[in-house]
Amino acid sequence: MSDFFDPLFSRSAKNIKPSPIREILHLVRKPGMISFAGGMPDPEIFPIEQFQEAANIITREGKDIMQYGTTEGYPPLKDFISEWTAPKMGRKLQHEEILITAGSSQVVDLLCWALIDEGDYVVCEDPTFLGATGTMRNHKARFLTVPCDENGMQVDLLPDLIEKTLAEGGRIKFIYTIVNFHNPLGCDLSLERRKKLLDIAKRYGILILEDDPYGYVRFDGEDIPSIFSMDRDGIVLFACSFSKILAPGTRVAWCAGDKDLIRKMTVFKQGTDVCTSVVVQAMVWEYCKLGHLDSFLPRIIDHYRNKRDRMEAAFHAHLPLDLISWQKPAGGFFYWMTTPGIRADRLLEKAVDKGVAFVLGSAFYPTDSGGDNNFRMCFTFASPEMTDTGVKRLGEALRELA
Amino acid sequence: MSDFFDPLFSRSAKNIKPSPIREILHLVRKPGMISFAGGMPDPEIFPIEQFQEAANIITREGKDIMQYGTTEGYPPLKDFISEWTAPKMGRKLQHEEILITAGSSQVVDLLCWALIDEGDYVVCEDPTFLGATGTMRNHKARFLTVPCDENGMQVDLLPDLIEKTLAEGGRIKFIYTIVNFHNPLGCDLSLERRKKLLDIAKRYGILILEDDPYGYVRFDGEDIPSIFSMDRDGIVLFACSFSKILAPGTRVAWCAGDKDLIRKMTVFKQGTDVCTSVVVQAMVWEYCKLGHLDSFLPRIIDHYRNKRDRMEAAFHAHLPLDLISWQKPAGGFFYWMTTPGIRADRLLEKAVDKGVAFVLGSAFYPTDSGGDNNFRMCFTFASPEMTDTGVKRLGEALRELA
Repeated sequence: MSDFFDPLFSRSAKNIKPSPIREILHLVRKPGMISFAGGMPDPEIFPIEQFQEAANIITREGKDIMQYGTTEGYPPLKDFISEWTAPKMGRKLQHEEILITAGSSQVVDLLCWALIDEGDYVVCEDPTFLGATGTMRNHKARFLTVPCDENGMQVDLLPDLIEKTLAEGGRIKFIYTIVNFHNPLGCDLSLERRKKLLDIAKRYGILILEDDPYGYVRFDGEDIPSIFSMDRDGIVLFACSFSKILAPGTRVAWCAGDKDLIRKMTVFKQGTDVCTSVVVQAMVWEYCKLGHLDSFLPRIIDHYRNKRDRMEAAFHAHLPLDLISWQKPAGGFFYWMTTPGIRADRLLEKAVDKGVAFVLGSAFYPTDSGGDNNFRMCFTFASPEMTDTGVKRLGEALRELA
Repeated sequence: MSDFFDPLFSRSAKNIKPSPIREILHLVRKPGMISFAGGMPDPEIFPIEQFQEAANIITREGKDIMQYGTTEGYPPLKDFISEWTAPKMGRKLQHEEILITAGSSQVVDLLCWALIDEGDYVVCEDPTFLGATGTMRNHKARFLTVPCDENGMQVDLLPDLIEKTLAEGGRIKFIYTIVNFHNPLGCDLSLERRKKLLDIAKRYGILILEDDPYGYVRFDGEDIPSIFSMDRDGIVLFACSFSKILAPGTRVAWCAGDKDLIRKMTVFKQGTDVCTSVVVQAMVWEYCKLGHLDSFLPRIIDHYRNKRDRMEAAFHAHLPLDLISWQKPAGGFFYWMTTPGIRADRLLEKAVDKGVAFVLGSAFYPTDSGGDNNFRMCFTFASPEMTDTGVKRLGEALRELA
């Protein structure tokens, strides 16, 4: 049967291949493997009892929520988001500025639908979240990449990059940035850089996609104002999700931005899934309305802070500090590791032999160069005991390659 | 702010406009309006109590179902679908042949992702479901249309159409057909034509998308075998949904087809929403497993048969039979009305004045010609009393235009 699909049926311009994450997920299913690969929440901290209680909304609102919903999203959930996010957004969002999506991956997909023609450019951090760039690639976007340091995207490099691209006739459609507890870097984009980035975006009339799935999971320090909150021109589309602050199995996220852009994205959402599951939007809303989001989130944050601290301690206890370095993240899910003298792919091979897995740094570089001496470790999923054992195995693998 | 998006930010090749259905939905919100426009289930027949019971799976399986799920779908739900659909599919499906989607609109979207390059052709019935062609249009597909009669697509016209297109260098990627209780026509594709269509598809190596959201909602007569069940070459992708047999607010549907194609669609699904809400997939599965799907479906069918009969009776009581004709559907949601001497757009204007709405036939013609003397009436949503009153108003509007 494959003959029917190749080459006649395949999209000509597109290589279909499993993502590196999928390959890793396959690998980590080996018995005894300790995985720091997937960026997954800890199921031990899912608010199961509270979410079960929220499901009682079915009896109360069943006639409404079992029906088709508006593509824009369940209005009561929009009300809640408008109120709850006001401190981060700098003001209460209007309904027309919000679109509820099936995870924040869908925000990227819909934004590409609204803006990207084949060959258009997206400016990305180098490295960046590979799920997002994979989606952009499906839409046949090309990438302009900006290197990062411990304060995130080096925005000073942007104007030259933009000028050069525009001079060559390239069309730049948006700048993609993960502002808090970056995936995979774990760092924040500093306040100074946020301001500069907004100035640059305004100067060139380029939209910013401010992706912030981890922003509400801060362990240390003060929140940094969102770029959205500083924007007076509607050139920031802000994306957030219930995946990390409630549970990813809901697949409920949202974005906020200029009404015209939201309207365009809504038209394309109608063509992909009509609307996000109304049943689960309503359950998420009820969960929030019952006060569980506010009461449970501090427990989630404490839980993950402990897990980060456990991994930090395990690093100091078990890793050869002359061979590897890292920056302690102030929130989120990830450590970004640097092994200057050791190739990460060779380390992964050795690590998997010893029963520990991570994601190669190179997977996060959209232009396929970079990250050869880096890898990403997720600290939220593994149990404390597995964290100790896994990091110990990692230390052994490192020493054998020294 | 609009300046930022137009023209710099817009996709160049795409006109963004609300679909006719959206315009209608807006219209029908006028106070006192009786709407036969939207193709919506009757909330009075939603199994609210049973679905609430199914939500108890959260307590039992929360750790698993609140987590990210596999893109392919929740495995227990796949097990159920494999068993439950065996009579229609002609055999039990394997897991690798099934993809769970966010409504069957997403099946169309993912199939286009997997197969469509700009300018590729899709063969469609004329008329056909405008949601599906809207999605195909987003993917920059072009349409080859085949007229329908009371037995569905006139498949004998297909070979010439295909030959001509291939001779001109056109690439035809798939044939889209709604086999049971067609939207908007209400008719079935006859068994003879299903066989012929499969033969033609095999001869030219063209995939068939067999869309069957209404097939399980049959009021009269015997089921006609699915094209999928006759296919030995894996060139049929079958799509079905829980929207009409449980509730559309779940947004849970599925498709079944060749493993290679399913794998490709899965890769693209990862780029759009990662996976369908695991929470709601699990709730749908629990609902099915508790036996509610099987025990409730006959009640849904009886309910809608009564509603169809009520509308049929109202037609005979209130419509001027010299001005309008229709074919009684054996299942599904829709009547397709023909008014040979009266333009449907003029009728709609008059009808809306009188407080009754429907969808213009022309909205369902992908190449924007046809249906000027047709419109679609949904009989499932309005109450019996509203059906009587609405049809009476329709009759008055017709007489005034005679």
